Amino acid sequence: VREPATLVVVLDLLGVFVFALSGATLAVQQRLDAFGVLVLAAAAALGGGVLRDVLLGLLPPAALVDARYLLVPPVAAALVFWFSPLVDRLGPAVRLFDAAGLGLFVAAGTTKALDAGLDPVPAVVVGCLTGIGGGVLRDVLAGVVPIVLRRELYAVPAVLGAVVVVAADALEVRGPLGAVVAVLVVFAVRMLAVSRDWHAPVARRPGG
Amino acid sequence: VREPATLVVVLDLLGVFVFALSGATLAVQQRLDAFGVLVLAAAAALGGGVLRDVLLGLLPPAALVDARYLLVPPVAAALVFWFSPLVDRLGPAVRLFDAAGLGLFVAAGTTKALDAGLDPVPAVVVGCLTGIGGGVLRDVLAGVVPIVLRRELYAVPAVLGAVVVVAADALEVRGPLGAVVAVLVVFAVRMLAVSRDWHAPVARRPGG
Amino acid sequence: VREPATLVVVLDLLGVFVFALSGATLAVQQRLDAFGVLVLAAAAALGGGVLRDVLLGLLPPAALVDARYLLVPPVAAALVFWFSPLVDRLGPAVRLFDAAGLGLFVAAGTTKALDAGLDPVPAVVVGCLTGIGGGVLRDVLAGVVPIVLRRELYAVPAVLGAVVVVAADALEVRGPLGAVVAVLVVFAVRMLAVSRDWHAPVARRPGG
Repeated sequence: VREPATLVVVLDLLGVFVFALSGATLAVQQRLDAFGVLVLAAAAALGGGVLRDVLLGLLPPAALVDARYLLVPPVAAALVFWFSPLVDRLGPAVRLFDAAGLGLFVAAGTTKALDAGLDPVPAVVVGCLTGIGGGVLRDVLAGVVPIVLRRELYAVPAVLGAVVVVAADALEVRGPLGAVVAVLVVFAVRMLAVSRDWHAPVARRPGG
Repeated sequence: VREPATLVVVLDLLGVFVFALSGATLAVQQRLDAFGVLVLAAAAALGGGVLRDVLLGLLPPAALVDARYLLVPPVAAALVFWFSPLVDRLGPAVRLFDAAGLGLFVAAGTTKALDAGLDPVPAVVVGCLTGIGGGVLRDVLAGVVPIVLRRELYAVPAVLGAVVVVAADALEVRGPLGAVVAVLVVFAVRMLAVSRDWHAPVARRPGG
Repeated sequence: VREPATLVVVLDLLGVFVFALSGATLAVQQRLDAFGVLVLAAAAALGGGVLRDVLLGLLPPAALVDARYLLVPPVAAALVFWFSPLVDRLGPAVRLFDAAGLGLFVAAGTTKALDAGLDPVPAVVVGCLTGIGGGVLRDVLAGVVPIVLRRELYAVPAVLGAVVVVAADALEVRGPLGAVVAVLVVFAVRMLAVSRDWHAPVARRPGG
């Protein structure tokens, strides 16, 4: 197994933590029990990265080879479970975490796809799937409409962030600069979309 | 990465287009926004082929290596989005596209599975999963009961088409003849099932 | 392709049969037609093992290489379909089968993960996913809340069983003893949880 770049691992582990918080929070809001909280935390936190590694053929996925990935979701689930009375007051904080996780995973996924030799457009797709996959799995398991299909801008910041990583790579920007800018772009655009209630257009329909 | 046969690529790309139309149409009917239309188009169009390539261990999947796969869903999504007032009048046309896509993907999937060295029965299974996978993903994401579980014949034409491909291979029929016959068989049986309202039997239950 | 251990194959095929019964039974209860019964039987029976083999990079998965895996779900589906009037009276028997399947798949999955060189903690995770994956796929396709998220202990016996396999391996217990004990532990704990209505705790919420 080829060793993934340190940059990918750091982005990944931060993303795992904040997405685990989002999954555990949804589980508490849905009144699932302690193990439901752990399952949704792990699904949200690890789903996107596992999907990425399966698509890239890097198997077993990082989440099963590097023990740090598996340690993070239980910690996040325990935090949310024990401090659950705070969760209802943390709506805005949860959205911050989710937006941060989206940025981190998009940057990690696009970088790893380029490292694996994919062309720019497929690398953007893999980056977006890495960012979106865990949330989709979390929402499908919990029986709610996946966040990416809801009527607020979610896919747009992901695509923008992935394009930043690909552009930085094409311009041969050294070090983690491209990834850091990508995380900030995703985070800023996503939070603006939430706070200003931005929507994408809906198709016209006869009589609609 | 071994080069897939031209026959598989042609069947695949036609199938990608018609299934992308089906995903985009469902998204418009569900009143999703522009990016929801794109996501469901891509899920329906690429889900079956990606599932096939993951199962065959041909990674990264064709959809991430050959740029043509990724270009088709946005085109189909844009067509459906801009001409959406027509969509409601296109119910029968959409069913035609869906039946054509099922035939194309079953033929492509079965052929690729045989090329990968699978035995006839697993090749039939992979062919059916290729034909059905994208539609199941589309329906689960959109929160509707997957088409293959609804009470109209959907799996039967898929199995028949896959068996035609396997039989043509066993009889050493040269060229694309077996695949073309398979596509026509799937299309014809599926359209007959829809137009004549054919059903598979349901299990008896006490008092049912 | 490396030959899987005989122990894994035996555990796997028994698990395939009992989980296929569970999928077919749910399909009859949901009034799906004959092919829906077959699809849910196959999804429940093969989903967990295919997920395991994808994660371990052992592709194509055993279910597509060894013909015995594909023969079992149709048999189970036919049994349930033809004897469906009995199904309503078999509620307790179905739970027995499901608990047995969970034990068999957890033992098979954990053993195969260790054979593939995974560390103990990831092997436990893969074992649990093997046991739980088919049931989750079955429930998501059927549009019901996945069993692992419902408020009865399901994940706990899976984790315990996987830990037994890992411990037996670490203690260099020879032969199938560890796996057999693991199956019995999962089965016993799961049936106790069902019969005594054991629950995991739920997070406190303000005003909840």
